[in-house]
Amino acid sequence: MNQPKHLTALELPPLPRAKLDSDNQAYFSKCEEKLGFVPNVLQAYSFDNIKLSNFIAFCDEIMLADSGLSKLEREMIAVVVSAANRCYYCLIAHGAVVRKLSKDPVLGELLVTNYRVADLPKRQRAMLDFATKMTTSSYEISEADRSGLREVGFAERDIWDIVAVAGFFNMSNRMASALDMMPNPQYHQLGR
Amino acid sequence: MNQPKHLTALELPPLPRAKLDSDNQAYFSKCEEKLGFVPNVLQAYSFDNIKLSNFIAFCDEIMLADSGLSKLEREMIAVVVSAANRCYYCLIAHGAVVRKLSKDPVLGELLVTNYRVADLPKRQRAMLDFATKMTTSSYEISEADRSGLREVGFAERDIWDIVAVAGFFNMSNRMASALDMMPNPQYHQLGR
Amino acid sequence: MNQPKHLTALELPPLPRAKLDSDNQAYFSKCEEKLGFVPNVLQAYSFDNIKLSNFIAFCDEIMLADSGLSKLEREMIAVVVSAANRCYYCLIAHGAVVRKLSKDPVLGELLVTNYRVADLPKRQRAMLDFATKMTTSSYEISEADRSGLREVGFAERDIWDIVAVAGFFNMSNRMASALDMMPNPQYHQLGR
Amino acid sequence: MNQPKHLTALELPPLPRAKLDSDNQAYFSKCEEKLGFVPNVLQAYSFDNIKLSNFIAFCDEIMLADSGLSKLEREMIAVVVSAANRCYYCLIAHGAVVRKLSKDPVLGELLVTNYRVADLPKRQRAMLDFATKMTTSSYEISEADRSGLREVGFAERDIWDIVAVAGFFNMSNRMASALDMMPNPQYHQLGR
Amino acid sequence: MNQPKHLTALELPPLPRAKLDSDNQAYFSKCEEKLGFVPNVLQAYSFDNIKLSNFIAFCDEIMLADSGLSKLEREMIAVVVSAANRCYYCLIAHGAVVRKLSKDPVLGELLVTNYRVADLPKRQRAMLDFATKMTTSSYEISEADRSGLREVGFAERDIWDIVAVAGFFNMSNRMASALDMMPNPQYHQLGR
Amino acid sequence: MNQPKHLTALELPPLPRAKLDSDNQAYFSKCEEKLGFVPNVLQAYSFDNIKLSNFIAFCDEIMLADSGLSKLEREMIAVVVSAANRCYYCLIAHGAVVRKLSKDPVLGELLVTNYRVADLPKRQRAMLDFATKMTTSSYEISEADRSGLREVGFAERDIWDIVAVAGFFNMSNRMASALDMMPNPQYHQLGR
Repeated sequence: MNQPKHLTALELPPLPRAKLDSDNQAYFSKCEEKLGFVPNVLQAYSFDNIKLSNFIAFCDEIMLADSGLSKLEREMIAVVVSAANRCYYCLIAHGAVVRKLSKDPVLGELLVTNYRVADLPKRQRAMLDFATKMTTSSYEISEADRSGLREVGFAERDIWDIVAVAGFFNMSNRMASALDMMPNPQYHQLGR
Repeated sequence: MNQPKHLTALELPPLPRAKLDSDNQAYFSKCEEKLGFVPNVLQAYSFDNIKLSNFIAFCDEIMLADSGLSKLEREMIAVVVSAANRCYYCLIAHGAVVRKLSKDPVLGELLVTNYRVADLPKRQRAMLDFATKMTTSSYEISEADRSGLREVGFAERDIWDIVAVAGFFNMSNRMASALDMMPNPQYHQLGR
Repeated sequence: MNQPKHLTALELPPLPRAKLDSDNQAYFSKCEEKLGFVPNVLQAYSFDNIKLSNFIAFCDEIMLADSGLSKLEREMIAVVVSAANRCYYCLIAHGAVVRKLSKDPVLGELLVTNYRVADLPKRQRAMLDFATKMTTSSYEISEADRSGLREVGFAERDIWDIVAVAGFFNMSNRMASALDMMPNPQYHQLGR
Repeated sequence: MNQPKHLTALELPPLPRAKLDSDNQAYFSKCEEKLGFVPNVLQAYSFDNIKLSNFIAFCDEIMLADSGLSKLEREMIAVVVSAANRCYYCLIAHGAVVRKLSKDPVLGELLVTNYRVADLPKRQRAMLDFATKMTTSSYEISEADRSGLREVGFAERDIWDIVAVAGFFNMSNRMASALDMMPNPQYHQLGR
Repeated sequence: MNQPKHLTALELPPLPRAKLDSDNQAYFSKCEEKLGFVPNVLQAYSFDNIKLSNFIAFCDEIMLADSGLSKLEREMIAVVVSAANRCYYCLIAHGAVVRKLSKDPVLGELLVTNYRVADLPKRQRAMLDFATKMTTSSYEISEADRSGLREVGFAERDIWDIVAVAGFFNMSNRMASALDMMPNPQYHQLGR
Repeated sequence: MNQPKHLTALELPPLPRAKLDSDNQAYFSKCEEKLGFVPNVLQAYSFDNIKLSNFIAFCDEIMLADSGLSKLEREMIAVVVSAANRCYYCLIAHGAVVRKLSKDPVLGELLVTNYRVADLPKRQRAMLDFATKMTTSSYEISEADRSGLREVGFAERDIWDIVAVAGFFNMSNRMASALDMMPNPQYHQLGR
């Protein structure tokens, strides 16, 4: 296996489980229960209790809270933004989640490699085009781009959510690449 | 004044102050006390109490918590990333904070326009080069780039903080541009 | 499954098997025997016997003939070039071949998403960097780039072979994308 | 102040005032009268009397002669081109002139950071889009781009003037960056 | 003459003429008869008989076989793709062929420098735009691009041929640049 | 001939020769004597006497005045900058001048297509690399780039001249492309 063996390239060892705040401990236990493991991004943050709990709260609200976007759609944005940024960690982890939620491994591959090739409903295509433009040339986004989203049925609040998810992965991708963060090996087989 | 008059391009009106959670209300009051106004990015988030408090917690820990980077250095990264992304909101708001913290309006202008021209200590130049590479081609970051930071004296934890700040503004810039978020007019004169 | 259902976007139906030249028929039978299917790129070319046999001869000599590069190394170049060009067909098909030849599915994922993250021997890293530069800015290749290959042990003939493989996939990727060519579904599970 | 202390990075000392041609001396005096200082770009050219007077004549005709474009509009083009080229000298100097002529400091900031965000009349937006395309991909300009200018009311001669101003700053920006030319400190406060 | 003196930068000497397969010998003789010389690209391949004959077969079928595209049109695509890739060898060799076939040296210069400036029939302009998009951003080609070709009269098979020629030169250009291949001096005067 | 028939795309007819200032008339006569024609760029400017004489003075001082750079070297910069900007007018006109001054048509072709391939003295290679960086990413030029020029023997004044020529053609190229300016047909055969 040619994947480096570290969690990240920085020597910032995770706190021992017992030193984590009880909320963080509980969250890790829930991950192990549901997924079978604690995602490495959380391990990477766990050298500091506050950073870890802030990240969990911030990320989960964006990806899991009630929204006009389904959880799968939010993961689709995650993968398409990560593909534009060529982020290994996020493509492996969120590509897996797309496969799992959609029960369609081919959809996962399409989004990882080139979503433009996929045969998607107009709504999802528009959402992914917008997220891509946010990633590659956000300063050129104009009212016409937002109107395009409204025309395929997105409400104001949905647009906020597209923006929030695409924004979040533009942060996460860059952090993961800058830190050389490695995904848990379990992701590779998930949902295949 | 040629600046659009809206808070953002979306019709997501802020909750009335009284409907904000008490923590959020308190935070807004503190802003008004210290700055004289509530930054528009917080107003923009204030259509939803949880989104608002998550954002405040996440952002403040990154920008204000104890760190090997000074608050000014974190704001310098914010401005340089925002310049690479050509984000009007963040350049106006964080350019102002750089002027205020540094008491050097020229430094603010240098970072907004082209930080490469500034006469900076090696440490800060390396930090800003790294943040720029994270912004424009994160997938090309390698161990050599991280070593460059260590060589000018950054500790592992400092590198995490550089990465976290640069990552955060790659999110914020894109959200602000995608939403056409407008800065408070007060920023324009701050620290001049 | 969100993959379009066509072979390519052009209406150029393959000749019936019986109308193929005997060499081409034999080649297709060998594919079915060895792989279980005829790769769609060959089906796509099979509207014309001469085009098909020329393509088979040209491609197979590059990828399978004796060389200082192993077959796996040539497939690694194929995937890395296809990643730079974001070619769905070639990433799916040659990503699968890398998994199969290397018996290392993670290596396949690393090359599909961002080979710079992989923990590769110097020789292979240099080979993939050269292939990437050929893909993104061939007009900037200089003697220093070729010397870099010699320094990690490549002979003159090996360098020709790197160049030939990287060149070939810069053709194939663009043809596949321009034609909206779809990979055989069997590739998705191959070597997992 | 983190701005380098030199006029330019080259050791080409200005001629003493007495060695300047009388026209050039008179021009410098007029600058001091009107602006309070001689712009550093002129100081930089003043190692040679002919270069200096040629530059003054060429620049002033473009920026100040009768035209269907107002002086402010020509300065707006100057700033927008300089923003695309990230030229510190020109953004500081001409950003100041925009503030002064428009009496609108916010307009200056909008053009320095991202003119696409400004709420501009169609005519000015078209003019700035054209100048930006000239800056980033002039070889892709076509009749459709010129027609776009005619449609918002520009006459043939006005189009020449847009082209001349945008062209001029594509020269000046590159010269200023290549020479590391530093703006006069007085610009920073002008028109605030 | 500032052109390097080698055939390519690799030490892979051509086989002596007598060691070439009889078909290859015959082909070289035909070149000398018709053109007055053997194109250097063929000399470069002639260190290996099979590579040479495969290349000849593959290239000639694409460029010379019956097609809805004239030979000149295929050469026009060759030049425009080579211009986008800034390939010296192919611009000199195929620029010469365009001059010769079209008997219009100016057309050759237009395609070498910037085909967008030429006054071309819609059909040829569409063909060259498509080939250019294949060269610079093939992953963004969509059904709309293919429909554009159909609208100006190209049949399915013609589109295949445009794709095949543009693909081929994206291979050849990169090989020529990577190998520092030098064109025969005779091309420079051909068709002037 | 596929070159458009106009002087530029704008309807700005040249003044009749008799309406030109006497200096401009004399200059045009000298062109006809020496070159056999008046360069179209001057015809294009000749709708206005002052613009024309300013342009002549400015351009001629840069290209023809005493300098540590030979006239050929200045024309080499002109061509290389024009190649980066893909400017048809300037590549045809100044490519011709390079052929004529150097008596080496191949040098002209090398600079028009890809100067990196030419076998140039270190001094000229450094000069052209600097001019290219000024053209494509002037904001990234640093002291190291200027030092590179000093190391191959350029004096401070020579560096100014490199900068002035490269700057000038970044203006001219963009104006010529934006105006669709057409070169005189005589250039095509000049110096062949």
